[in-house]
Amino acid sequence: MNSLHFTAESSSNGMVQRDFAVGEVPGVLWSPAPGADRAPLILLAHDGGKHKKHPAMTGRAHRLVTGCGFHVAVIDAPGHGDRPRTARDEREKLALAGARAAGEPVGPIVLRHNAHVAELVVPEWQATLDALQELPEIGTDGQVGFFGVRMGTAIGVPLVAVEPRITAAVFGLHWPDDLAEKAKQITIPIEFAMQWDDEHIPREAGLALFDAFASKEKTLHANAGKQGELPRFEADSAVHFFARHFGRAVTLPA
Amino acid sequence: MNSLHFTAESSSNGMVQRDFAVGEVPGVLWSPAPGADRAPLILLAHDGGKHKKHPAMTGRAHRLVTGCGFHVAVIDAPGHGDRPRTARDEREKLALAGARAAGEPVGPIVLRHNAHVAELVVPEWQATLDALQELPEIGTDGQVGFFGVRMGTAIGVPLVAVEPRITAAVFGLHWPDDLAEKAKQITIPIEFAMQWDDEHIPREAGLALFDAFASKEKTLHANAGKQGELPRFEADSAVHFFARHFGRAVTLPA
Repeated sequence: MNSLHFTAESSSNGMVQRDFAVGEVPGVLWSPAPGADRAPLILLAHDGGKHKKHPAMTGRAHRLVTGCGFHVAVIDAPGHGDRPRTARDEREKLALAGARAAGEPVGPIVLRHNAHVAELVVPEWQATLDALQELPEIGTDGQVGFFGVRMGTAIGVPLVAVEPRITAAVFGLHWPDDLAEKAKQITIPIEFAMQWDDEHIPREAGLALFDAFASKEKTLHANAGKQGELPRFEADSAVHFFARHFGRAVTLPA
Repeated sequence: MNSLHFTAESSSNGMVQRDFAVGEVPGVLWSPAPGADRAPLILLAHDGGKHKKHPAMTGRAHRLVTGCGFHVAVIDAPGHGDRPRTARDEREKLALAGARAAGEPVGPIVLRHNAHVAELVVPEWQATLDALQELPEIGTDGQVGFFGVRMGTAIGVPLVAVEPRITAAVFGLHWPDDLAEKAKQITIPIEFAMQWDDEHIPREAGLALFDAFASKEKTLHANAGKQGELPRFEADSAVHFFARHFGRAVTLPA
């Protein structure tokens, strides 16, 4: 088993940021002030083309850490952030840009890319979780959640389907194609976000993926607007969701 | 115009409860401690067969008053609570009990009853709002929200469609039949709750009513489970929704 090496540490805005590596995989762990009690860990997954410290990640992490006292970890997915790009990654990037420029549907390219990344990164997430749980402030018996939309959902659904340590998850903004069969194996509480007027994912497709989860407790949040208009308050909603399931109080700014 | 008469006052659990009457309509106003600043008013509507002080009303009021400092008002709908029942009310009650006992669909009876009550109570709600706004702690230029599911939605949709003073609303658990045309006239922010496995309202019917609202900002919350299993955390979600739109901080227990 690869253990975790911290490579940098800083502190700002009420949270401690520690860069780490587990084998070849670079990640970042955000935590409450040192010396805080053991706390649940939320695994965040970044979107396709983004990276572990993208503002969407730091923003969500800040609300989870300062609002609830959680630990939050993100790793760079293969071909993203500080990790090398393969010839395949470059081809897919060009294919996506070409489809966008030509006004053609991007769905097939995004789906193919997301499935490929998910296959590579699921075992990396499991190894990262093994290593993170060796830290005394997280622990092997601590609560673990997962939060990722778009490519983060393409990664999270197969991860949660095989990973019993994750007991609550927030997903969203994805097609059911590669994921519905795995979603049927998932029974933990989930919250699922979709955009009612998504220009890429048909409404019926978003509803079908939500429907596929076998979870007794599952909540769909559908907001008016296109895919890029997912409201920021859904990040707060995710904080409340994890707080509810992990028995934590929430202190968020108005 | 009928003015408002207070008929009783008490205080417990951090809120002041004042019974009132506007003409023949009895209501209750829950408020923060006396002397608090002017605050937004949330109009709550009770469900069919229930009344203004049903636990679902007092529970929601308590979270809105103590969590956000709002005023909350409920009136007894015609034929409910402290108001007289007509021969029609008694017939509908028997029809509903008969359908339930025979295992027949209750939808047509509920729809007919809700539409009748709504027609009577919408002008009563407007007169009540007129009278409540005469109170200095509410004021004629204060913010006003509406919160009601089931029969509360059958009342709230036509009320909000004609009442520009209401600028944010939480609805849910209803068929589109009598309401979709009025929902198309509504443009204020809404949150809409439905149950994914509702045994009375088909999934497509719930989705169709949500779809009908013309609001640029609208959020659907669909939870797994039957109609009676609407999760309690949706009441908290409504508090956060009103707090967001009325610029208030929220302090809720974990």
